[in-house]
Amino acid sequence: MRIDVVTIFPEYLEPLKVSLVGKARAAGRLDVRVHDLRDWAHDRHNTVDDTPYGGGPGMVMMTGPWGEALDDALAEGYEAGASRPALVVPTPSGRPFTQELAAELSAHPWLVFAPARYEGIDSRVTAEYRTRMPVYEVSIGDYVLAGGEAAVLVITEAVARLLPGVLGNAQSHRDDSFAPGAMANLLEGPVYTKPPQWRGRGIPEVLLSGHHGKIARWRRDEALRRTVANRPDLVRRCDPSVFDRRDREMLSILGWQPGPDGRFGPSPYAVEE
Amino acid sequence: MRIDVVTIFPEYLEPLKVSLVGKARAAGRLDVRVHDLRDWAHDRHNTVDDTPYGGGPGMVMMTGPWGEALDDALAEGYEAGASRPALVVPTPSGRPFTQELAAELSAHPWLVFAPARYEGIDSRVTAEYRTRMPVYEVSIGDYVLAGGEAAVLVITEAVARLLPGVLGNAQSHRDDSFAPGAMANLLEGPVYTKPPQWRGRGIPEVLLSGHHGKIARWRRDEALRRTVANRPDLVRRCDPSVFDRRDREMLSILGWQPGPDGRFGPSPYAVEE
Repeated sequence: MRIDVVTIFPEYLEPLKVSLVGKARAAGRLDVRVHDLRDWAHDRHNTVDDTPYGGGPGMVMMTGPWGEALDDALAEGYEAGASRPALVVPTPSGRPFTQELAAELSAHPWLVFAPARYEGIDSRVTAEYRTRMPVYEVSIGDYVLAGGEAAVLVITEAVARLLPGVLGNAQSHRDDSFAPGAMANLLEGPVYTKPPQWRGRGIPEVLLSGHHGKIARWRRDEALRRTVANRPDLVRRCDPSVFDRRDREMLSILGWQPGPDGRFGPSPYAVEE
Repeated sequence: MRIDVVTIFPEYLEPLKVSLVGKARAAGRLDVRVHDLRDWAHDRHNTVDDTPYGGGPGMVMMTGPWGEALDDALAEGYEAGASRPALVVPTPSGRPFTQELAAELSAHPWLVFAPARYEGIDSRVTAEYRTRMPVYEVSIGDYVLAGGEAAVLVITEAVARLLPGVLGNAQSHRDDSFAPGAMANLLEGPVYTKPPQWRGRGIPEVLLSGHHGKIARWRRDEALRRTVANRPDLVRRCDPSVFDRRDREMLSILGWQPGPDGRFGPSPYAVEE
């Protein structure tokens, strides 16, 4: 996969040299190019923004430098043999970035990132490139950042670990929170490793039992417990047919019961702990 | 605010030196310390992880190095005059990080981050520190990263820009997507700046009208349009009393209407575009 990033803070993308993404690059699975948007500015102050039409606070990034920077990055990529680019624009106004979208992006051979600063990029830029390639305007979450660069790191890391040959152990995907399968829509519960005692704290006995069935059951109970506590929305969204008898018992202990549509929700009689 | 980060990838935190967070540090608003977890490992391989109790793929980070690293970082901070630390553990199993939680965290004088790698940190670590300070286990979104470091960058940036004196123009907060106020729960619509023509593309005429009321209305129409397209969940969540007559017209044009509970949803008669 080829990745181009156009940004006014190239230093912000330094983490793409370390850890998983750095290793994927060293292994030749990823070709990452970072471009400084200001190289395409035309005045001696390297201006890339101006006041918004219609007034209001903040500054808007101009069409000119973005258009030229993206055109040059695209030309360079095509020349190097890349094809079928997709433009990714991190913005709080985008559609949510999810594990499903990470998988979709990981199937593209070439991603071009346009992280904005200030109030965003002049809207004609995405309109223009939408006529030439898929454009993903995505939001990594319901919070406001100073710019899209942190989102580029997040998206690149989530995408890179799905590329073939990047994660050593293919199995590690399977138990991920948000992965499809038995634990779909459930968060992972607590984990423990040696030593068995630490500062007076032991570990749940079942984990030493060697009984695979009991361990799997305990993990599922804990996953249910944590999901109800931290992400009730995920439990509500679950197709109730995924819950076996013991799941239903556990949910009932946690104060949840099936509603008129069969989906589980907090019991109206539940006492808040 | 003081921020400590304990990590096995200190280089990943380099972006905390640039842009908004870098400026906040230079201005003395933020004191950031990054610690290498491996400095608290005890064998010559600097091991910080081991196999999970109960079996399964992946590795779990050990209590020992984490406990000692956090104790030392805390002691150093207390000595420097910091007080009331809160521990922030990025994990896909946590509660969602939102703008509201960013505001809550920004009120703490001292945040200590414990970004995990592999399958997570031995659960006794958070259990231990929970007896001494608030512990926030947070997820920045429904996707899987290679580790918590990218989340530390996201959370720090979202928190730092809310600290007094960090953003130049206090007004910039007000129009943010997810900020409280008239646009609460609506995404920001498109923005434009000079020149008025670019590659054959103009800008919406109303923005040149100088008519503040019409411009505000146009922006709200576009915000509604974008929110319905990218985040229907936000529109559904809106208290319908925030929608005026023109909002309701606009929602109706977009194929949405009030349901039995008054909240808006896609009309069952709407034709998908």
